[in-house]
Amino acid sequence: MRRAGCAGRDVVARLLNLLVQHPHIDRTFAALADPTRRAVLERLGRGSATISDLAEPFAMSLTGMKKHVRVLEDAGLVSTEKVGRTRRCTLGPRRLEDVAAWVDMYRRMLDERLDRFGQMLERTKGDPR
Amino acid sequence: MRRAGCAGRDVVARLLNLLVQHPHIDRTFAALADPTRRAVLERLGRGSATISDLAEPFAMSLTGMKKHVRVLEDAGLVSTEKVGRTRRCTLGPRRLEDVAAWVDMYRRMLDERLDRFGQMLERTKGDPR
Repeated sequence: MRRAGCAGRDVVARLLNLLVQHPHIDRTFAALADPTRRAVLERLGRGSATISDLAEPFAMSLTGMKKHVRVLEDAGLVSTEKVGRTRRCTLGPRRLEDVAAWVDMYRRMLDERLDRFGQMLERTKGDPR
Repeated sequence: MRRAGCAGRDVVARLLNLLVQHPHIDRTFAALADPTRRAVLERLGRGSATISDLAEPFAMSLTGMKKHVRVLEDAGLVSTEKVGRTRRCTLGPRRLEDVAAWVDMYRRMLDERLDRFGQMLERTKGDPR
């Protein structure tokens, strides 16, 4: 019980640290949880586009695409600018550092767990049972 | 207009490819969009735990934690097993390969865009205007 309590405080400390460092990470993960929004980012990687340009390949309404772009804008992934009667979309300045760091940390953690498991197997190899 | 159409087909092809390769990626990004769920994964990286163990550090109800664990389970990130009257949670087998691959692809794309921008600046340097 005591150990679980300590582990809990550790989790909360890391969590608070992550929140302070990366206040956008929740919104970023949520923004990336949709295939249309990920495809929009890939499209904008090849150059800026209007809402109509973005909507066309998906046969999507302008209203529907505007909503997706708004989610990406709120996550800091896309910047938009009104140019005459159209809205020009470009990739925002964020490089997904926070997401990449979290995913790397998680994968390292899994590797360490696998290493520990391997070491345990190695140790028990000589065990007569 | 013609170019936008071609770019659109390219986007759709890449999107379909990604969906076929990684059917879980939407659910994974959505599961990771919550700080409690990310902290649960970090906690499980240090060993299996019951729902009560997981709920305790967050002062969360068992029902609330069960919901979070279910979302992680649906995304394949956590496995659970009923042991007597408790439910034992462990990390699932998924290593976030799909998420890591997408994030890497996106970051490479941003770097290429920056390189192109740098080359453009370099070319215009000698420009008398």
